[in-house]
Amino acid sequence: MTDTTWLYEQFAPAGSAIGFRVRRKLDEVQSPFQKIEIYESTDWGNVMLIDGAMMLTTRDNFFYHEMMSHPALFTHADPKRVVIIGGGDCGTLREVLKHHGVERAVQCDIDEQVTRMSEKYFPELCDSNHDPRAELLFDDGIAYMANCAAGSVDVVIVDSTDPVGPAEGLFNRAFFASCHRALADDGILVQQSESPLVLLELIKAMRSEMGKAGFSMFQTLPFPQPCYPTGWWSCTLARKGGGFGFRAADARGKAFDTKYYSADIHAAAQVLPQFVAAALAGELEQGARDA
Amino acid sequence: MTDTTWLYEQFAPAGSAIGFRVRRKLDEVQSPFQKIEIYESTDWGNVMLIDGAMMLTTRDNFFYHEMMSHPALFTHADPKRVVIIGGGDCGTLREVLKHHGVERAVQCDIDEQVTRMSEKYFPELCDSNHDPRAELLFDDGIAYMANCAAGSVDVVIVDSTDPVGPAEGLFNRAFFASCHRALADDGILVQQSESPLVLLELIKAMRSEMGKAGFSMFQTLPFPQPCYPTGWWSCTLARKGGGFGFRAADARGKAFDTKYYSADIHAAAQVLPQFVAAALAGELEQGARDA
Repeated sequence: MTDTTWLYEQFAPAGSAIGFRVRRKLDEVQSPFQKIEIYESTDWGNVMLIDGAMMLTTRDNFFYHEMMSHPALFTHADPKRVVIIGGGDCGTLREVLKHHGVERAVQCDIDEQVTRMSEKYFPELCDSNHDPRAELLFDDGIAYMANCAAGSVDVVIVDSTDPVGPAEGLFNRAFFASCHRALADDGILVQQSESPLVLLELIKAMRSEMGKAGFSMFQTLPFPQPCYPTGWWSCTLARKGGGFGFRAADARGKAFDTKYYSADIHAAAQVLPQFVAAALAGELEQGARDA
Repeated sequence: MTDTTWLYEQFAPAGSAIGFRVRRKLDEVQSPFQKIEIYESTDWGNVMLIDGAMMLTTRDNFFYHEMMSHPALFTHADPKRVVIIGGGDCGTLREVLKHHGVERAVQCDIDEQVTRMSEKYFPELCDSNHDPRAELLFDDGIAYMANCAAGSVDVVIVDSTDPVGPAEGLFNRAFFASCHRALADDGILVQQSESPLVLLELIKAMRSEMGKAGFSMFQTLPFPQPCYPTGWWSCTLARKGGGFGFRAADARGKAFDTKYYSADIHAAAQVLPQFVAAALAGELEQGARDA
């Protein structure tokens, strides 16, 4: 243990930090957009940081990738056309393509280097990159969504970094309006929505912006995520209508393995803790509601 | 922000760390048992450490204290006699005494200094210390349980530090056998059981020891806890029999406030993630089972 050191992310907005014990830095690249670093840890496999923020570890990324994909895909009645904005590590893409009904999954990340690093240091997440249904684009996700044909997408998954830097434009009304337009009437938008403990105001603001962009129903699902600030994270689903009942029988009989997600976990995640429910209840007055 | 620094707990068994931004150390005492430190943080209120391990913060202790008390108390049909082993910060005692049916709650912590520090820096947790139903003992919890009259307790809550140092003896068969003997036939033991991600083997070992001590049914409930390693924690309930159905109507109609706990959260916490359920399923062969 003499050759190890501790690597920390200090998350200034919440005054908290997460750290891992690491053996060495494996790689570092400064892309046109951000600095990407890879470390080898003692207990968490490889760790990717972007601009100093923990993005994923080999050991615990399954929580996030499963919860960013399966709840939305099992809520939609028959998801065929999926777009992932961000998600350059390809972990969400892999989960999406586990659904045999999906005919096309476009992953549009602005930074090709994230995918190149993931192919090298998280190869298991890139298992499905050569699936004929997958299309990997390295382009501006805001422009991509703005140019999507109206009503052409079933599920949009916004698998982005924090709402600062390159991802800032993925958290505002204009972007949500593009998503709303691109989605078919029964379409679903799902976005990573930060910590329900320390960033509850951000979740409220995001849902408010989604509402102003035309979405009328929201569902925030909390889940554990040790490598993110506070170790507790969330995704938020938005729909034009149709509610958040999900295909529980299909989820229960799914033909693929998951480590965290199950039909019962999906249902359990719909239960918001008292203080989260109370904070989000204010939106009811604006006509938005949880399922 | 110039006068702040970062305070970390490096959790060696998992190679992960949790940290908070702090302004200053408010107090420190070396008791006969352990070193207790109090810091003032920028975003989490006060922080207590014992022997360098984060014990609680003003902001996030509600997860732990509510989940250590209400699930057990709403599972028991009519809990009147409660014993808390450890729990010197008095936060669990406060939650227990919110239940009007409780007639007597004994808190037995070996270290009086923990309670003195809590009274000073977490006074809100000590609100119920002078409740006539409360009895605060500063003594050895192992001896206390061994000397309890057989069948005299409805709920034993083991609110201990990690299973090293003073708390080591609270995780073995001899101690669990004392609890089993002290509990009435429909009694419940609940113990904090560490992180379900990185300490799953400890949970299995604990349940195995509980089984050898005579308990036949177990229930592990995960919950978020940002100040503990990985930000994801658990408690484990053990019963002689009677199952883990709980008084959902009473929980729904409870006459007191909680921030995290609710009847729905209680039910949701009973859903184990796939990998946790799979790991604990091996115990089924030994006759132990989840409800």
